[in-house]
Amino acid sequence: MNKRTEIGTLGEFGLIRHLTEKIELKNSSTVKGVGDDAAVLDYQNKEILVTTDLLLEGIHFDFTYVPLKHLGYKSAVVNFSDVYAMNGRPKQITVSLGISKRFSVEDLEEFYSGLTLACEVYGVDLVGGDTSASLTGLTISTTCLGEAEKDQVVYRSGAKETDLICVSGDLGAAYMGLQLLEREKQIFKGEKDFTPDFSGKEYLLERQLKPEARKDIVELLAKNDVKPTSMIDVSDGLSSELLHIARESNVGCQIYEERIPIDFQTASMAEQFNMNLITAAMNGGEDYELLFTVPLTDHDKVAAIKGVRIIGHITKPEFGTLLVGRDGGEVELKAQGWNSLAQE
Amino acid sequence: MNKRTEIGTLGEFGLIRHLTEKIELKNSSTVKGVGDDAAVLDYQNKEILVTTDLLLEGIHFDFTYVPLKHLGYKSAVVNFSDVYAMNGRPKQITVSLGISKRFSVEDLEEFYSGLTLACEVYGVDLVGGDTSASLTGLTISTTCLGEAEKDQVVYRSGAKETDLICVSGDLGAAYMGLQLLEREKQIFKGEKDFTPDFSGKEYLLERQLKPEARKDIVELLAKNDVKPTSMIDVSDGLSSELLHIARESNVGCQIYEERIPIDFQTASMAEQFNMNLITAAMNGGEDYELLFTVPLTDHDKVAAIKGVRIIGHITKPEFGTLLVGRDGGEVELKAQGWNSLAQE
Repeated sequence: MNKRTEIGTLGEFGLIRHLTEKIELKNSSTVKGVGDDAAVLDYQNKEILVTTDLLLEGIHFDFTYVPLKHLGYKSAVVNFSDVYAMNGRPKQITVSLGISKRFSVEDLEEFYSGLTLACEVYGVDLVGGDTSASLTGLTISTTCLGEAEKDQVVYRSGAKETDLICVSGDLGAAYMGLQLLEREKQIFKGEKDFTPDFSGKEYLLERQLKPEARKDIVELLAKNDVKPTSMIDVSDGLSSELLHIARESNVGCQIYEERIPIDFQTASMAEQFNMNLITAAMNGGEDYELLFTVPLTDHDKVAAIKGVRIIGHITKPEFGTLLVGRDGGEVELKAQGWNSLAQE
Repeated sequence: MNKRTEIGTLGEFGLIRHLTEKIELKNSSTVKGVGDDAAVLDYQNKEILVTTDLLLEGIHFDFTYVPLKHLGYKSAVVNFSDVYAMNGRPKQITVSLGISKRFSVEDLEEFYSGLTLACEVYGVDLVGGDTSASLTGLTISTTCLGEAEKDQVVYRSGAKETDLICVSGDLGAAYMGLQLLEREKQIFKGEKDFTPDFSGKEYLLERQLKPEARKDIVELLAKNDVKPTSMIDVSDGLSSELLHIARESNVGCQIYEERIPIDFQTASMAEQFNMNLITAAMNGGEDYELLFTVPLTDHDKVAAIKGVRIIGHITKPEFGTLLVGRDGGEVELKAQGWNSLAQE
């Protein structure tokens, strides 16, 4: 039997102290973390980046297959990813939780163990939050602060004609991981002690349950003296993100189907599920890879960076936003990305 | 009939654009607001204050009597209050919403009208957020960023023996307003077109439904050259906040019942409800007044500030945290403040 301590026995302040007392601050920009009306930060003369995410049970995660520790890790990482997408470095995070009676102190310890692991891996300080009862499921709200040198912030709006379009890693695997988990859930509903066989599909599950933010790519770009002209992270799917860049930069784009990076496990799973592989890679979402543009003159530099693929180029806006197929046919991009509000 | 536009017709990005397109940025520290992976801020050489609040339907608000516009206003103001409590000035806010099908675009416009009104009144820029579907009620998560000169940040931990304990405004009215609203809800459950008579109790309702943060007090303190040694805002009740200061500063305190500021309407309502007035004032919560300590030498300066009352003084820790009654009897303070996690 696992130990179960009711949250009510600690109360709000007791719970916060219990969960945060071991937190050690790492960053010189963190002056004061948890424990006052506000956290106090000092960024000297750097730009401050602020991004926030809301994750709701039943919409963004399903406890049938998401362990709390993984959820804590992912909640932080998806927030860090937005800071990297500005060419910044995440430094602080606040995490607010709405908790229903179903959760015990031990459950929250699990969540916090994932959260603090992510903070360690990415060098981020947990500096605050709010904790409340919830009448329904678990509510997670995270806000990440990061820093960037003044001339190093990269927006979605800076892409220029002839720029190369690049993407890190591979696409569609997180989506395939979700399909796999959903299928197993459907098949084995009710059969409690069943452990599905995921062998040979570990990469897909890891991409879905424990994604990483591309700290390494941002560092490699800096090391190779490449400053992207525009950048965004792939959370809603490649199509959706390309359309954001095209819209904000007032440009068109052309990408090539044959250049889209896809892992072998993703391709094999798509075949098994009889799904269109390119649709999954273009619209799957939750990849947390970086999509960015660089000047044509940086071609050799980005081509030399491992884990970055050049997938197309920026065009005049009147040429539209196009996917060029293997047969040379052109398709207009559509944002079919994950959209919880339209799906409702 | 009110117009009702379903949120699904706009989608997530459409909804965000619709609600935020008219936002004008006011602060020089806001470099980039809504519309990229993160907001970009520049605080030059000032300290950054960060605070976050989570508000959940059924726990923190009840749509039976809370209009959406008021809720938008209050969501922002309670967050600003935490920044003032650090002796800072709020400058930016992010607001994330989890929205169930029940809400229309017009409902969210109402919420945003209250939110942007608060931002105008307090000179704050709305710079970001996240919007998601929710399977249940409305979820609101706000994060406020504020600034302070480096040597002007006031923590909970700086109170010293013999310091004077001061509080702004009056206490217990917001709690009485809540009691009043709850009573009317109980009495008239089901009778839809009934409008309860709140005349003569407007102040109580306003304190509950449309609280203000004490920007004026923070400015008056600065103008009168008073820097508090410690400060906190009264959100959970005076007792609870005094205990925070005593704990963080490692001191005791002594406050006098007869000095606790209470409005006439609060007193009259307590009598009508047959409630203990001092309990309501000490533990009611949601007053959003400022509780602070100043050196004894600042007595004349704070005594001259309108709207500030000296209610006691700081003692050695071994003397405990005491409320001295009108009869001279001493009672140890207890945190009976609003605690949603213990109440569950």
